[in-house]
Amino acid sequence: MSRCYNFSPGPAALPEAVLRQASAELLDWGGSGMSVMEMSHRSAEFNGIAVEAEACLRRLLDLSADYAVLFMHGGATTQFSAVPLNLGFPAGQADYVNTGHWSSKAIAEAGRYLEVNVVATSVEENFSTIPPQKTWSLNDNAAYLHHTPNETIGGVEFFWVPEVEVPLVADMSSTLLSRPVDIHRFGVVYASAQKNIGPAGLTLVLVHRELLGRAAAATPSLLNWKITADHQSMFNTPPTYALYLTGLVLAWLEARGGLEAIEAVNRRKAEKLYRMIDDCDFYSNPVAEHCRSLMNIPFTLADDALDKIFLAQAREAGLLNLKGHRSVGGMRASLYNAISEQAVDVLIDFMRDFAASRG
Amino acid sequence: MSRCYNFSPGPAALPEAVLRQASAELLDWGGSGMSVMEMSHRSAEFNGIAVEAEACLRRLLDLSADYAVLFMHGGATTQFSAVPLNLGFPAGQADYVNTGHWSSKAIAEAGRYLEVNVVATSVEENFSTIPPQKTWSLNDNAAYLHHTPNETIGGVEFFWVPEVEVPLVADMSSTLLSRPVDIHRFGVVYASAQKNIGPAGLTLVLVHRELLGRAAAATPSLLNWKITADHQSMFNTPPTYALYLTGLVLAWLEARGGLEAIEAVNRRKAEKLYRMIDDCDFYSNPVAEHCRSLMNIPFTLADDALDKIFLAQAREAGLLNLKGHRSVGGMRASLYNAISEQAVDVLIDFMRDFAASRG
Repeated sequence: MSRCYNFSPGPAALPEAVLRQASAELLDWGGSGMSVMEMSHRSAEFNGIAVEAEACLRRLLDLSADYAVLFMHGGATTQFSAVPLNLGFPAGQADYVNTGHWSSKAIAEAGRYLEVNVVATSVEENFSTIPPQKTWSLNDNAAYLHHTPNETIGGVEFFWVPEVEVPLVADMSSTLLSRPVDIHRFGVVYASAQKNIGPAGLTLVLVHRELLGRAAAATPSLLNWKITADHQSMFNTPPTYALYLTGLVLAWLEARGGLEAIEAVNRRKAEKLYRMIDDCDFYSNPVAEHCRSLMNIPFTLADDALDKIFLAQAREAGLLNLKGHRSVGGMRASLYNAISEQAVDVLIDFMRDFAASRG
Repeated sequence: MSRCYNFSPGPAALPEAVLRQASAELLDWGGSGMSVMEMSHRSAEFNGIAVEAEACLRRLLDLSADYAVLFMHGGATTQFSAVPLNLGFPAGQADYVNTGHWSSKAIAEAGRYLEVNVVATSVEENFSTIPPQKTWSLNDNAAYLHHTPNETIGGVEFFWVPEVEVPLVADMSSTLLSRPVDIHRFGVVYASAQKNIGPAGLTLVLVHRELLGRAAAATPSLLNWKITADHQSMFNTPPTYALYLTGLVLAWLEARGGLEAIEAVNRRKAEKLYRMIDDCDFYSNPVAEHCRSLMNIPFTLADDALDKIFLAQAREAGLLNLKGHRSVGGMRASLYNAISEQAVDVLIDFMRDFAASRG
């Protein structure tokens, strides 16, 4: 098969230009005679790759030197532990907003370390909305407030930044790099790579430097933000190949015009798909309009007995990974940066045809 | 430059056949229309890749079902924390053997969690030997005994397995897959991928199942061996591309005849390089003969003022990454599985010529 249209929620599609470059230089990077994955992480060649990746990220985010950029092992789930370990003490309590599957996981892991105050939840609305901040029960003694600006499974997204007195922490796995966000309003932002950044196994952590140095004694060195910052993310061998690919993705994004430009594309993609779903009785999306995700669009068919045939016909049309998460069922189209507008047009045409023939 | 001879201590050279296959299928794996790094880790395709990688590893090691095979995020340094967290309690103390740089790092990290008894050390011999077990001060109350069968920087290697009453733990980063080892004599074996296994960011952990379930409460879920085992290494998204490449390396090793076959090659490579060093007054290796590493061969020139010119001329000859670790200086040739016998022959010829012209 040629390249499919891949609507995977993550690991997600990567830009084809990035993959072509990676393939072309896989055996010999820049005339070095070796693959990036065969280089010492302390070599001049790899150091150049890492330094440029960080510089490009800082340009894209317009990020000040007050923030450390950490390339860490693991996924966002690793940070579910790292956040309370690095920031939760001596307070021993923290505020969490629960807007879905991933907030719930972060809460469960944090609860192993400290007292978690769930200041707001949309569980009774089946995670189809985001409670406005005026309804939250904030706690003055919290070490920080944690929220998840985009819930990948539920398809809800914050288009506003909470205003709190304590350090604001965000799991931006599905938001970072999809549109401009002012990182300076946050204390800590983390994002697993496998959405809009690069391959799985790498997580970006952006930390205001004044929050470094508070880690609990039991923090494993490799989860310690200050140790990671002090060693420029090379306390041990980082996931070098993932970091190199991340650099390629960042350069691709910059060449496309950066975050304003990609936001415009992402808004057009999402808006046309939501419009089609809303305009067609056969499909529906359960999410409140003010918080519909630009990245993950769950939808159901009028008759779920047709789910299997929908997925099979979509696959035949080269439209892959449209099945909803096992916890909620239905369908989901994830429209990360590497998904072209044309891919969304093909999906919409397919969905229209399917509805016409089966609706 | 064409492919160089890469004597890097890690991330180390990978088999060229593996890199060629990875490059060829980077944009489209097996007709799936996507790269492995764009696949859901829960897809049938990726599941097949992960299952076959584990099966191949079990065949190569002749590993019984009593052991869990874990593909974990991070490096061996992550396991320096994971070992005491998963195995150190309630005893709260553990025995460690200190034979060099990496043992020392493991000891320092473990010391953050429990009382470490250093039962033997070769620090006074400048880590150039391995103290025989009869000289060790073992502790009956230790939760486990940890050692490092190969010290990558010092170039010392255990060719025997300690006999202890407590669970035996080994950092086999530079040993695993270089020759047959009876894993069943160990409680836990771990190895970072970037030597003989695959790219950095993945660590293999082999744990006897009866040692699962002892983790301290403060163990981050992603460092918890039992949680990892219960979820077949997919509690979160694993480093999927690194795992795929590991599968290719394992298949390459099996096709070459497995561990007995690679051991024969590795012994020939190391023996001829040691012989040349010993026979030539210009070079020397400081390690006691009974524990000279098959994988990492440090050596010094008769005049260290010649180090820079040696490295520059080696580079011109396509022989890269021969510089010794910054903590010890001199030279080091790492001869991991992907280094061919021919590469070692070229190195030896170069070294002979250099000694003849400068010695």
